[in-house]
Amino acid sequence: MADFVARGSPAAPITPVVMSGGAGSRLWPVSRAAKPKQLHALTGDRTLLRRTVDRFAHAPDLFGAPIVVCGAAHEALVRAQFAGDPEPPRLILEPVGRNTAACAAVAAYWVAGSEGPDRLILLAPADHLVASPRAFAEAVRRAVPAAEAGDLVSLGVRPTHPETGYGYIRLGEPRGEVFEAARFVEKPDRETAERYLAHGGYLWNGGYFLFRADRMILEMERLAPEIFARAREAVDRGRPIDGGGLALDPAAFAAAPSDSIDYAVMEKAGRIAVAPLDAGWSDVGSWSSVWENARRDEGGNAVVGDVLTIDAHGCFIRSEGPMVAVAGARDLIVVATPDAVLVAPRQEAQKVKDIVARLLAMKRVELL
Amino acid sequence: MADFVARGSPAAPITPVVMSGGAGSRLWPVSRAAKPKQLHALTGDRTLLRRTVDRFAHAPDLFGAPIVVCGAAHEALVRAQFAGDPEPPRLILEPVGRNTAACAAVAAYWVAGSEGPDRLILLAPADHLVASPRAFAEAVRRAVPAAEAGDLVSLGVRPTHPETGYGYIRLGEPRGEVFEAARFVEKPDRETAERYLAHGGYLWNGGYFLFRADRMILEMERLAPEIFARAREAVDRGRPIDGGGLALDPAAFAAAPSDSIDYAVMEKAGRIAVAPLDAGWSDVGSWSSVWENARRDEGGNAVVGDVLTIDAHGCFIRSEGPMVAVAGARDLIVVATPDAVLVAPRQEAQKVKDIVARLLAMKRVELL
Repeated sequence: MADFVARGSPAAPITPVVMSGGAGSRLWPVSRAAKPKQLHALTGDRTLLRRTVDRFAHAPDLFGAPIVVCGAAHEALVRAQFAGDPEPPRLILEPVGRNTAACAAVAAYWVAGSEGPDRLILLAPADHLVASPRAFAEAVRRAVPAAEAGDLVSLGVRPTHPETGYGYIRLGEPRGEVFEAARFVEKPDRETAERYLAHGGYLWNGGYFLFRADRMILEMERLAPEIFARAREAVDRGRPIDGGGLALDPAAFAAAPSDSIDYAVMEKAGRIAVAPLDAGWSDVGSWSSVWENARRDEGGNAVVGDVLTIDAHGCFIRSEGPMVAVAGARDLIVVATPDAVLVAPRQEAQKVKDIVARLLAMKRVELL
Repeated sequence: MADFVARGSPAAPITPVVMSGGAGSRLWPVSRAAKPKQLHALTGDRTLLRRTVDRFAHAPDLFGAPIVVCGAAHEALVRAQFAGDPEPPRLILEPVGRNTAACAAVAAYWVAGSEGPDRLILLAPADHLVASPRAFAEAVRRAVPAAEAGDLVSLGVRPTHPETGYGYIRLGEPRGEVFEAARFVEKPDRETAERYLAHGGYLWNGGYFLFRADRMILEMERLAPEIFARAREAVDRGRPIDGGGLALDPAAFAAAPSDSIDYAVMEKAGRIAVAPLDAGWSDVGSWSSVWENARRDEGGNAVVGDVLTIDAHGCFIRSEGPMVAVAGARDLIVVATPDAVLVAPRQEAQKVKDIVARLLAMKRVELL
């Protein structure tokens, strides 16, 4: 793995591991099992995965060669994202999805073996937007000393509204440029979220984690031994693939329990820190959020594709299929693909998951 | 033309002439140049044209064999409507559309020549709905004596709301079972329409006209001589087609001025009568009107095709293309075809014509 060492030079202490295994069903009908959210350009012309990987190039002194962990079924689509790049990211292929804890275990174990046990890893979701890559890098940079000293550092986003769809991290005492994490809290109800917002001492759990590979391995062996054992097996029995990556062993990885890294490790581990992230973050978790992050015309409409609007205001309209004409509408989401069309008021964007659930119940798998 | 006489027996004094030349652009994107409104099933499972022709079968003592006047380009689609019928309607094919005056002139001249000059003709739009064919026939039956005596009789619909999209007929003195028409009035503004509604002496001009062929010929020679001359030429130089119909001569018919029968004749002719029509009439002139005439579920939604609704109310949703999912919406129109999708609030249904105008300006002819 000589090319590895060259790429992950000591001058760039962090190996970014991009988790690209999500389904993104709240962005149906564009996001589908065969081509999930992160493989689409939702704002601008690059896909979320491509933007995530490109983000690291803004701080080459900080970030070494990235790894992308994705479903084996998406290998070709993911590779196509980086066709022509002199150094495309290495891929780790998951035969099935097993949530973020197993992904973190695989990353920690593989990077420890190939780049050294004290190598820093930044676990990063593939499907978020970060407006300022520079501010993002600076937030990570401030977290490096704590991570090098052995903390598991979570990046925490300053809440802008009482969001009930995210976990929160209660800030503890400041320690250098980061804070102790007093507590991880699950998705709150509305009232609790409002209290957190007013309180000011709670940050959103953005899903980014910086840690030394050996420290994560240690915590996983202690807190999630079954997940870690299966992940290790899946790496050890894995098959090398083009570009210096790895296809995980299907039987071993499938046997790993499915759990989130937050729940399996971060909420229970010792020495958890939080580094505030103020970089224009969005998880683009709904079409409403895509609208918020999109360029809008003077009528407040964001349109993508073959779209005609007449007297429309505050609408998000996107087509990658039939021509879409919207007349006289306010605050509407209209998303069209060749085989499915979604229409919902912007304020009801979260109902998309009910649609997806219904389609699943109806066994309309061709639409999922 | 022996089969003619057999079908148009004296016992059934009226030859229905169904005008199927309209574009129905307010029902875009379903209604297209290549397959306009009347060739679609908008409510129920029969097309509007088929329902119009079937309506006459409810009163075989009144209506003889019908004629359908349609665009030559639609011949195959129109014939397909009546495939397998023992006596499909005869067709008159228009090489181009020239509005209803030329259509009426052709019908009057051709029927006068083939079925006799005193034959009664009922001009009927192909794209309206009539809930009660029986009440329709009775309204026409009441108009027969006046028409036989030489009146041009218009069927007038009792207004239910201050519609600004129709012409009105001011009722004059009663004469037998009909009324004199005091005046034809063009589409009024809102205020005028409200005055008409309150007044009670105004009926909507429904677009149905009953008259003796020779009387219409006489009025046209007087009031619209150029239209009549070209129509006569188009018939005389026409080409017989399968089923006892006629393809009008292209050059002659194209030279006919384009005008409505209302404007060219009815508003100016002598001896105009009105027969009230109370039969559940609708011109299905917009998607909002289709919704009103459709069967609706308990949420007030009318859905056709591959549609999924979650918490939707008062919506009209139709797909003959992609699957359409609507969540959390109120009073919305969503119409999808394989290449175009329309979304508009139900109250804005009339904006569809602006969309069509815009598409025309953009030369998006493939969508028209």
